[in-house]
Amino acid sequence: MPVFLNATDPDFESAFTALLSAKREDSPDVDATVAGIIEDVRARGDAALLELTEKFDRLKLTAAALRLSAEDIRTAAASVPEAERDALRLAADRIRAYHERQLPEDAEWSDDTGATLGWRWTPVAAAGLYVPGGLASYPSSVLMNAIPARVAGVPRLAMVVPAPDGILNPLVLAAAELAGVDEIYRIGGAQAIAALAYGTETIAPVDKITGPGNAFVAAAKRRVFGKVGIDMIAGPSEILVIADADNDPDWIALDLLSQAEHDESAQSILITTDAAFGEAVAKAVETRLTTLSRSKIAGASWRDFGAVITVPDLDTAAQLSDRIAPEHLELCVADPDSLSAKITHAGAIFLGQWTPEAIGDYVGGPNHVLPTARSARFSSGLSVLDFMKRTTLARMTPAALRAIGPAAETLAATESLEAHGLSVTARLRKLND
Amino acid sequence: MPVFLNATDPDFESAFTALLSAKREDSPDVDATVAGIIEDVRARGDAALLELTEKFDRLKLTAAALRLSAEDIRTAAASVPEAERDALRLAADRIRAYHERQLPEDAEWSDDTGATLGWRWTPVAAAGLYVPGGLASYPSSVLMNAIPARVAGVPRLAMVVPAPDGILNPLVLAAAELAGVDEIYRIGGAQAIAALAYGTETIAPVDKITGPGNAFVAAAKRRVFGKVGIDMIAGPSEILVIADADNDPDWIALDLLSQAEHDESAQSILITTDAAFGEAVAKAVETRLTTLSRSKIAGASWRDFGAVITVPDLDTAAQLSDRIAPEHLELCVADPDSLSAKITHAGAIFLGQWTPEAIGDYVGGPNHVLPTARSARFSSGLSVLDFMKRTTLARMTPAALRAIGPAAETLAATESLEAHGLSVTARLRKLND
Repeated sequence: MPVFLNATDPDFESAFTALLSAKREDSPDVDATVAGIIEDVRARGDAALLELTEKFDRLKLTAAALRLSAEDIRTAAASVPEAERDALRLAADRIRAYHERQLPEDAEWSDDTGATLGWRWTPVAAAGLYVPGGLASYPSSVLMNAIPARVAGVPRLAMVVPAPDGILNPLVLAAAELAGVDEIYRIGGAQAIAALAYGTETIAPVDKITGPGNAFVAAAKRRVFGKVGIDMIAGPSEILVIADADNDPDWIALDLLSQAEHDESAQSILITTDAAFGEAVAKAVETRLTTLSRSKIAGASWRDFGAVITVPDLDTAAQLSDRIAPEHLELCVADPDSLSAKITHAGAIFLGQWTPEAIGDYVGGPNHVLPTARSARFSSGLSVLDFMKRTTLARMTPAALRAIGPAAETLAATESLEAHGLSVTARLRKLND
Repeated sequence: MPVFLNATDPDFESAFTALLSAKREDSPDVDATVAGIIEDVRARGDAALLELTEKFDRLKLTAAALRLSAEDIRTAAASVPEAERDALRLAADRIRAYHERQLPEDAEWSDDTGATLGWRWTPVAAAGLYVPGGLASYPSSVLMNAIPARVAGVPRLAMVVPAPDGILNPLVLAAAELAGVDEIYRIGGAQAIAALAYGTETIAPVDKITGPGNAFVAAAKRRVFGKVGIDMIAGPSEILVIADADNDPDWIALDLLSQAEHDESAQSILITTDAAFGEAVAKAVETRLTTLSRSKIAGASWRDFGAVITVPDLDTAAQLSDRIAPEHLELCVADPDSLSAKITHAGAIFLGQWTPEAIGDYVGGPNHVLPTARSARFSSGLSVLDFMKRTTLARMTPAALRAIGPAAETLAATESLEAHGLSVTARLRKLND
């Protein structure tokens, strides 16, 4: 059974705090193993990669076979039924259209001293995209990672995906082709992250690595961070639904289950202004669990981490929501816009009862890679900006230097950085000659 | 002596690669110590903080004295000479004006299905600013970290600065007052980072921590990352100057020395189209080193990591610059704009010979917190965006769901995520009733 809380109960605060701080994931400590794998790939390149792939994926390859041929990709993509290809195309078009609006603008202006200031955005030169193998090998993730990189203008996009026992998901390859991935390698785990970060004889290194993965992949991304950029380290998925009584309990139950079915560590929370509606939703969840194909996973998540919270009003709901800082937030209320305006911390907001979160996972347009574990307090979902960087620009004229140089000399002196000051002084002296 | 290289020499490539991969910093492994300190502060709060401050800073405090009073700050700030306060004010005004242009825009639009899409930017609720004590206690760093946070709209800004033997730099406090810091605590090291991340009885936790620090601070920031956001972990400073022969060798020498004087691990590189000019600059460096107050540090940096590279043309200079991906890049050439357009990877570019890098450290306007160690390939300097996060928004109408819902159902089925699909199906069924 999930927890049932009522915000007006005297012990609510302690129960809610306990819910917030519940540890949902025990990450196994694989850091030493991962460090060894990375060192091995750095030292021995392809040879290590091939050995590790045989060991972990039971797949014997040659260096030449690490990379999928254009023919391999075309054949796999062509095997995908037309209806699925159409759905992928619709998703890709909508994701592209949304992300194109994120392209940042360069700026350049002159200030009152005559100095020219500004900045310029440029894409990273090469991005690497990790795609998990097996059950979690999602074509939607390929689109959500590759399309922002392409929109950013990244000239080279390399993808790695493990092929355990030689098996690859044709839809993943179809999505990669559609999104414009340049290179695909059939490798996975920490060894694939090491190859992307440091390069091997066959795989050129990249500058930024994104994409989800298991504990080994997460630990490897943490380790190579600094050598390359990485996206976030995502935790288990979460949804918070705020719903009034004017909803179909079954719809809300399905929305809660759509996160719960991802992972036993996922968390689904309902906040409602109507306790009876909360009970009805919990009942609908139980009913759906009797037939759901992933009921074992979804049931465990709902039982261990699910919660139904009754609040006296929507203002209280907004306050609790900000303390949860959910990855996904559904606002199934009469006026979702005015409730949304009261929310500060959330990865993605889905407004109104016609916007189930699953729309955002696939075809809405916004990215589905979002901050988990309360990190929406300080971070954002994946975007075009993650594949770009900003160079600041400054150009002084003699007059500008005359105007602001003396202040720089003064501050350099206070920091005892003599050469800093002298680099200004020498120029000002020339101007005053 | 620095290395002298010529891009047309047959062994240039290997020498340049060696220069790029030279290890400039041996970070001591303080991770275990730092882990212990963080656990201690988490477990015992103020009591641990007070003990550790007495131990490391030789400063015995009470919980009530951790935070500087308004009176303490006013008195210290008032002791700063007027000329220095004016210089700080000029710097603050220019930094604020530059960063105000970085404020991102919210967006909302309707697409052809009638769906409303968009995003919204909000500031983090609380930011913590680390300021080192002792020699590296720079007022300019306070401005460069605090002003972007303030411009972002962060409602609470807490600063920590160690006071070894009770001593604080009054200019740091004056800068904090000017930048609008709300709270200042006289603590430092890993214990201060732990207090900001987890909170104690006296110090409320923050959501984002920025600012430079020693190896203990860097390790602590890495450890608390995830619980809170952090800025980059900065390495030793670097400058690359690209200069033609039409420059005063002494100016360029001073620009190189202004990074070298920061740290024995700093790196200063000159790329020039004229070998004789390169020699003249190296000679000017030696001359300046005979009188420079920090000549020991600057001399060691120049000797161990300095380089003068002669290239046949500016296109080659641009290519080498992108391989270096410098933190600071000065373009002292006749047409700096056209050379700048050929550069992709640099933290900050200073255009023309009237723009010494030191201007950027203090009063130019752009941020001086910039990516080091080649990370300009994938990351940017500190900005207003570092103190904000983006929430994506989506609102479907019944018509929009009818248009794109079926594609979501198809993709959910390919990923075997049944509840995802059903959350759409249930709604579409209602529409088709």
